[in-house]
Amino acid sequence: MRNIRVTIEYDGTDFWGWQIQRKGRCVQGVLQDALFKLLQEKVNVIAAGRTDSGVHARGQVANFRTNSQRDLKIIFKALNNLTPEDIIIHDILEVPVEFNARFDALERTYRYYISLRPLAIGKRYCWYCYYKLNFDLLNECCEYLKNVENFKSFCYSRSEVKTHICHINKAFWIKDGDNLTFEISANRFLHGMVRTLVGTMLDVSRGHISIEEFKEIFVKLDRRFATKTAPPEGLILERVKYP
Amino acid sequence: MRNIRVTIEYDGTDFWGWQIQRKGRCVQGVLQDALFKLLQEKVNVIAAGRTDSGVHARGQVANFRTNSQRDLKIIFKALNNLTPEDIIIHDILEVPVEFNARFDALERTYRYYISLRPLAIGKRYCWYCYYKLNFDLLNECCEYLKNVENFKSFCYSRSEVKTHICHINKAFWIKDGDNLTFEISANRFLHGMVRTLVGTMLDVSRGHISIEEFKEIFVKLDRRFATKTAPPEGLILERVKYP
Repeated sequence: MRNIRVTIEYDGTDFWGWQIQRKGRCVQGVLQDALFKLLQEKVNVIAAGRTDSGVHARGQVANFRTNSQRDLKIIFKALNNLTPEDIIIHDILEVPVEFNARFDALERTYRYYISLRPLAIGKRYCWYCYYKLNFDLLNECCEYLKNVENFKSFCYSRSEVKTHICHINKAFWIKDGDNLTFEISANRFLHGMVRTLVGTMLDVSRGHISIEEFKEIFVKLDRRFATKTAPPEGLILERVKYP
Repeated sequence: MRNIRVTIEYDGTDFWGWQIQRKGRCVQGVLQDALFKLLQEKVNVIAAGRTDSGVHARGQVANFRTNSQRDLKIIFKALNNLTPEDIIIHDILEVPVEFNARFDALERTYRYYISLRPLAIGKRYCWYCYYKLNFDLLNECCEYLKNVENFKSFCYSRSEVKTHICHINKAFWIKDGDNLTFEISANRFLHGMVRTLVGTMLDVSRGHISIEEFKEIFVKLDRRFATKTAPPEGLILERVKYP
């Protein structure tokens, strides 16, 4: 049995997210179909981050186990030929059979892109935000973020996880003209967490809630206290770190 | 009679270019239809640059004359509501009746975006170029470009123009990791000129033709000597300058 690891980029616009669903086209499904054609074998592709519907990935990492003895270079080329234009396989390598892209990941990094003016070009990859914002408040929120651990209030309540503890390694906003970018790195993320954090931080930044109210949301441990969820198109899974 | 000037951004992917054609959806047609609904009047929208099929614009400038007395702010808002998501009107102003967006423009600036690695995200706005390139040769081509005037060899031969003389004010390439950008500003551009220049410069950069051969193409005054035309998706009309 071989274990193969791939780095994948996808434009999430026309996918119902990573994970296979009855609703329609999913990245995992499209990859597994391509691998079935190629390897004549049903494989299960495991991703580091199971991105939501409409969310993109520039550096998603995934692995699958196969009995096929085909050359890696051939698998790489054929996989890029068999997948549609909105998926690109950037690299492929053989890893120890016990490697698991999801459980072995040490850190995931997401970015959320906001434009302060309406866009036609690049509209698929950012959220147009017409609020008047206080930029400094966004980074004040980040300073607080880095010191909390329990993100239950920022996790979709239907999500079943054993723990809501996440360790944030980095969190900051940068501004370049009319473009704002939020970058966050953590050992793990809960379902909907980045988008709910972004939506709520923007509510602080536009003066809708105060920094103190923002801090209180964390203590409540209840999703209903977080204010907003930013739309999926602005979110990109940028990279995943392994030991 | 009022004359109204607008600055427009569009994602050219799903348009057959600026100018109205029987083939299908064109930016000019979509705008004129929206203005007809709004003003109950047939208007002719004149653009600074008649972009080709698939070419984008971030700062296209256009004007139209109307007898309508409606408030500019209302026209602005209504026009943005009546146009599809791939067109944005950024600003609107009333100008002297003799103003013509095409003939009064002093300078147009285009950028051509190239990626040296395949992309899924942003694929609509750049050309993935898998050649091994010598970057310095691209800027050597530019140095020459700035000193020539006759671009007949870089103009589609079916194009009917009185003169092929263009004055290049700026032309340079920049490299940022795997991304190359070519920027060119001139008083005017011929049909297909930027894309044919890009395609031919890349042929120099990949060692397919020499700098000397590149220079000779200009002297031939014949489109058949230019080597390649870069695809439309990488090209964006960035801005237009007026007195």
